Amino acid sequence: MTAPRTLEREEPNYYGAGPALLPTDVLQQAAYDLISYHGDSVGVGEISHRSKPATAIIDDTKNNLKQLLSIPDDYEVFFLQGGGTGGFSAIVQNMMAHYAKKTGRKGKAAYAVTGSWSAKALEEAKRLGFDAYPVVNTKSEHYSDIPPFSKWEQIKEDTAYLWVCDNETVHGNEFQTVPDSSYLPKDVPLIADMSSNILSKEIDVSKYGAIMAGAQKNIGIAGLTIYIVRKDLLDQATDEQLKSLDISLLPIAFSFPVVVKNNSAYNTIPLFTCQILKLVTEKLIKEGGVKAVEKTNNQKAKLLYDALDATSNFYTLPVKNPNVRSNMNVVFKTPSEELDAKFVKDAETQQLKGLKGHRSVGGIRASIYNAVTLESVEKLVQFVKDFAEKNA
Amino acid sequence: MTAPRTLEREEPNYYGAGPALLPTDVLQQAAYDLISYHGDSVGVGEISHRSKPATAIIDDTKNNLKQLLSIPDDYEVFFLQGGGTGGFSAIVQNMMAHYAKKTGRKGKAAYAVTGSWSAKALEEAKRLGFDAYPVVNTKSEHYSDIPPFSKWEQIKEDTAYLWVCDNETVHGNEFQTVPDSSYLPKDVPLIADMSSNILSKEIDVSKYGAIMAGAQKNIGIAGLTIYIVRKDLLDQATDEQLKSLDISLLPIAFSFPVVVKNNSAYNTIPLFTCQILKLVTEKLIKEGGVKAVEKTNNQKAKLLYDALDATSNFYTLPVKNPNVRSNMNVVFKTPSEELDAKFVKDAETQQLKGLKGHRSVGGIRASIYNAVTLESVEKLVQFVKDFAEKNA
Repeated sequence: MTAPRTLEREEPNYYGAGPALLPTDVLQQAAYDLISYHGDSVGVGEISHRSKPATAIIDDTKNNLKQLLSIPDDYEVFFLQGGGTGGFSAIVQNMMAHYAKKTGRKGKAAYAVTGSWSAKALEEAKRLGFDAYPVVNTKSEHYSDIPPFSKWEQIKEDTAYLWVCDNETVHGNEFQTVPDSSYLPKDVPLIADMSSNILSKEIDVSKYGAIMAGAQKNIGIAGLTIYIVRKDLLDQATDEQLKSLDISLLPIAFSFPVVVKNNSAYNTIPLFTCQILKLVTEKLIKEGGVKAVEKTNNQKAKLLYDALDATSNFYTLPVKNPNVRSNMNVVFKTPSEELDAKFVKDAETQQLKGLKGHRSVGGIRASIYNAVTLESVEKLVQFVKDFAEKNA
Repeated sequence: MTAPRTLEREEPNYYGAGPALLPTDVLQQAAYDLISYHGDSVGVGEISHRSKPATAIIDDTKNNLKQLLSIPDDYEVFFLQGGGTGGFSAIVQNMMAHYAKKTGRKGKAAYAVTGSWSAKALEEAKRLGFDAYPVVNTKSEHYSDIPPFSKWEQIKEDTAYLWVCDNETVHGNEFQTVPDSSYLPKDVPLIADMSSNILSKEIDVSKYGAIMAGAQKNIGIAGLTIYIVRKDLLDQATDEQLKSLDISLLPIAFSFPVVVKNNSAYNTIPLFTCQILKLVTEKLIKEGGVKAVEKTNNQKAKLLYDALDATSNFYTLPVKNPNVRSNMNVVFKTPSEELDAKFVKDAETQQLKGLKGHRSVGGIRASIYNAVTLESVEKLVQFVKDFAEKNA
């Protein structure tokens, strides 16, 4: 406990991939709320998850999300504990329970494998005993592109859903458009993992059956996952029916209908984490919503990619197709591993932090989520240029 | 954002059952850490869960717990996301995976049903498809006693474990001793849910196969569950073996061996929540450890129960056997529901808060966890006496 005791901080230049930077004013407000909520003598982490202020926090957060993403009325918004990995399991089992109700059969599951997170999601569906298959898998090309839907394999009969990871944080690619009726049969819902890009851009929620997003990148700290699920998909087979179809049951805390029925508080919801989500979404609304932040995000990404492209004799981008480059995670390499390490180290001496690439791919990764300012990206761009000049 | 912006607060008199009161100085330190960790310009909720400072927080918290509970070397300490409800599912499936490895068979599960939480745990084991059975069930007596082990039903053959909930928060009873070799066959591990009394008293960890505890009462905010598991129980059957035995697989994020192998960071661990746990355990060590806090907890409970017993013409305690009264959750009633409500309301006007009984049982509940001071209990005791006098 020797660190300075202040709630002020120098505005960080931090490009960590997640957990990631959050707005300083949100953290300051959350710090006060931790000690005393709404002027009461207890903090937001100490009150009952079923108390009135707790319910208000949950409801306000839901409503903020509905407003920001223009979520239609036929969708439920709710929260589960845990992160994306828990979501991989929760989605497959809930979607299969719905498919069993609808058809009386055990469904298959289609996955677009465009990076290590969608690969993990597919692996988990298989592990849980389902016939899950890739419709596209770009692993052999190091996930350097997202092929057009016309080149994806056909969706098999009895497929309960198609899974995409909208933004792959490790490999740095992002969908620009989603599979539409030209590819996807009308009765197969599209499920998107938006853990790393939710609220970074406008989306048309009605195109999705369900959206899942761990909170710890654009919108909060770790410990809570957001679900936006079309209401008809919450209609599920009974436990008995599932057992008779050899569909394994999920922990009750992961059952979407149970969670919805209990307004996300069946399990004790981590309320402090939800409060941060509320503050982040509140701030986003005040500052012009997703439209405004998307504009800035596009600017930020363009600045950085332009700088890298302009020095393509020095930097290489593993994502070859510029149309699928991620606006959130800019992944690149210098000519050597030694220079990659030097880049990260030199950047740190200039207080530009969190730039090391994921341990599975190496190189450099600049994550420029919502909370990373344009000014911060400009500083990084200057460093990128200078480093290339000095070390070319 | 209209509440006063200060990290000071009047010391609360708050008796909520959970999430529950935490020490003010811990919350203050956590508030600073949220903005800036160790003098860095980013906070503890923003750094990677695999970074050096994150690993240090996880390891320090584990070591603090080992020290405080004298955990033997043949036990692993680790953390899962979520709370007790997730733990009900995680324990049964992990223990069955171990039993399958050890015996090649699907095991049964024994539960001591001594309140609504152990009842829920039993229900979940059944729901997940296991032959789970109660060895004792005091529901018909409103969980007013814990019968001696000599009156419990015999453990059946092929039982993988015996589950007890060491302290039942809703009904206010607590085990004083644990089932020993006079009752429990040597090869059946004892599993304890200590969500509401961990670190409140000294325990002999070697008597347990596993201990599970949600953080949000004595030790932290919601979102993290502590596991203390004997290492040999982490040896589990393969997924294929489990499938062949008709044992349903759990989400990978719930797999104990996977979590242990990844030092509790397979899934993104909610690091801020872990940091609070670290600070709480650090403070406890400084203040004399579990021995010291147990002494105070005994004093607190005695004061309150003595006051209630002295006015037994006015207050009744649903837990009839004084030997199994909970030291954490003191549950009682006035002569009428109207007076119960008046008690809660009058107490609030005196800034004594969080006293309403659980919605399923009504009445009054004073939760006097570690963070509730002796002074705070003394104030409550005075109110208890005054209220009886005025309203008898």
